[in-house]
Amino acid sequence: MQADHERFIHETINLAEAAVAHGNEPFGSLLVKNGDVLLRVENTVYTGNDMTNHAEMNLVREALKQYDPAFLTDCTLYTSTEPCAMCAGAIYWSGIGRVVYGCTEQRLGEIAGIGLDVPCRTIFASGARKVDVVGPVCDLDAEKIHLSYWLRRSQ
Amino acid sequence: MQADHERFIHETINLAEAAVAHGNEPFGSLLVKNGDVLLRVENTVYTGNDMTNHAEMNLVREALKQYDPAFLTDCTLYTSTEPCAMCAGAIYWSGIGRVVYGCTEQRLGEIAGIGLDVPCRTIFASGARKVDVVGPVCDLDAEKIHLSYWLRRSQ
Repeated sequence: MQADHERFIHETINLAEAAVAHGNEPFGSLLVKNGDVLLRVENTVYTGNDMTNHAEMNLVREALKQYDPAFLTDCTLYTSTEPCAMCAGAIYWSGIGRVVYGCTEQRLGEIAGIGLDVPCRTIFASGARKVDVVGPVCDLDAEKIHLSYWLRRSQ
Repeated sequence: MQADHERFIHETINLAEAAVAHGNEPFGSLLVKNGDVLLRVENTVYTGNDMTNHAEMNLVREALKQYDPAFLTDCTLYTSTEPCAMCAGAIYWSGIGRVVYGCTEQRLGEIAGIGLDVPCRTIFASGARKVDVVGPVCDLDAEKIHLSYWLRRSQ
């Protein structure tokens, strides 16, 4: 199980690198069910000209087009960085049952100086529906892209 | 100023009633600048088949299509019920400068038994950008539609 988590988190880090190569911010997410990857999604805030186009938000919208909430209950959203409050809320409303994240949002905030520093567990704990959370996973690997991306932006 | 707030909140309540008439949940939002209403938006979770189509989320997405963040800083989002964590996050990322809400999310939770009970002020306080919040405003009027809608749903 932990080996699966590490493998999928590394895949989200690859997606985050692809997002930067495509002109966006360094975030990527996967939707996984029974070990199969159903969706691979990148951040598109700049190419989509919409600052709410976070990887997780994009994934939730695509998942809701393709699957119903009952199906999503048994799915896991893997994401390179802990979901922000907006994305945690979107995951809550979507019916997705579990989140596994790379580095914490707090660490992103320390590096980037932006963000909403509310742990996703706090958002989920305030709701009527249970969402399981695992993380951080491979956080030192997950934070590397932030160290390079946000440092370059601030120069 | 308070009279303006009350007038616009009543307009969002009318939009919430229209949303129910259109087959959706009872929520409506306005985008206002210098007393002019720029956008009128309803919840579309059922007609759009997307549980993230909250009124505020729909408004933010429409606002980002039409205006840039610098313009939005001087805008106010009026909404019939306090924004949930997802919508507060979206407002934060959009650049909108102020939120005025009708009844609290806590009151919605008491009535409907759903929702994410994190005050929007908590979400905004966790960010690097300031968002002003006014509310509750005309909360007893704003909660009426929830008392009728969610009671009917539970029967």
